[in-house]
Amino acid sequence: MSAAAANCIFCKIVKGTIPSFKLFETELTYAFLDVGPLSKGHLVIPKAHSQYFHEVSDEALADLLPVAKKVAKAINPAQYNVLQNNGRLANQAVDHVHFHIIPKPNEEEGLGIKWRPQTADKEELAAFAKEIVGRIEQ
Amino acid sequence: MSAAAANCIFCKIVKGTIPSFKLFETELTYAFLDVGPLSKGHLVIPKAHSQYFHEVSDEALADLLPVAKKVAKAINPAQYNVLQNNGRLANQAVDHVHFHIIPKPNEEEGLGIKWRPQTADKEELAAFAKEIVGRIEQ
Repeated sequence: MSAAAANCIFCKIVKGTIPSFKLFETELTYAFLDVGPLSKGHLVIPKAHSQYFHEVSDEALADLLPVAKKVAKAINPAQYNVLQNNGRLANQAVDHVHFHIIPKPNEEEGLGIKWRPQTADKEELAAFAKEIVGRIEQ
Repeated sequence: MSAAAANCIFCKIVKGTIPSFKLFETELTYAFLDVGPLSKGHLVIPKAHSQYFHEVSDEALADLLPVAKKVAKAINPAQYNVLQNNGRLANQAVDHVHFHIIPKPNEEEGLGIKWRPQTADKEELAAFAKEIVGRIEQ
């Protein structure tokens, strides 16, 4: 186990050395209620420690969303957001990949989103897409 | 095909009747750059039409995140958010499930999050968890 994992609060929750309100688990995934100041947070995490989304194994990723769906169906909010943050600037507070399921009951509660999408012309987009595709195919 | 799917812009993109900048695809998943006003949006969607996350098949969900990871690695942002919205109030603009990959290069650009988590005491959380677990086990 890495030093990061040894000190990770979510790794401790998965191991049971810190208590949590478990909702569901599989061999690879753990779903629970957050007990900290972020109360009533529904979290779905890969059991194995990764700091960022792009570091999680494909196997763990394949397992995660069906568990998140099961939890979302049980919570049964009319409207909700699924959010996963990478990096402090992007609002990641715990350095163990976690997916939030955030009910949006009304304008005030739940996730408020401010998002000014960048504009780009078609040629710029085409060039950008080509670059990404090239990197995927590497 | 349902009427909703027949009129769905993302279904048309998957079919190729509306052009898109494709980044990657599998049998079940399609990743592309958004061409509308939400330019430079990286979207990963199940090819089959579902309006909400909890309606997507487990098979399609299992396929989706490994594709999103591939795209995130190719975009290679230092920090980013993965976001999926369900319902107008929760900022869903197109009624075909889609996961945004949103780079967060600085405070101003990318996703701005306002989120005041609810507080709850441990007894309330325990009761809430028990209720959810009961529904999952049904």
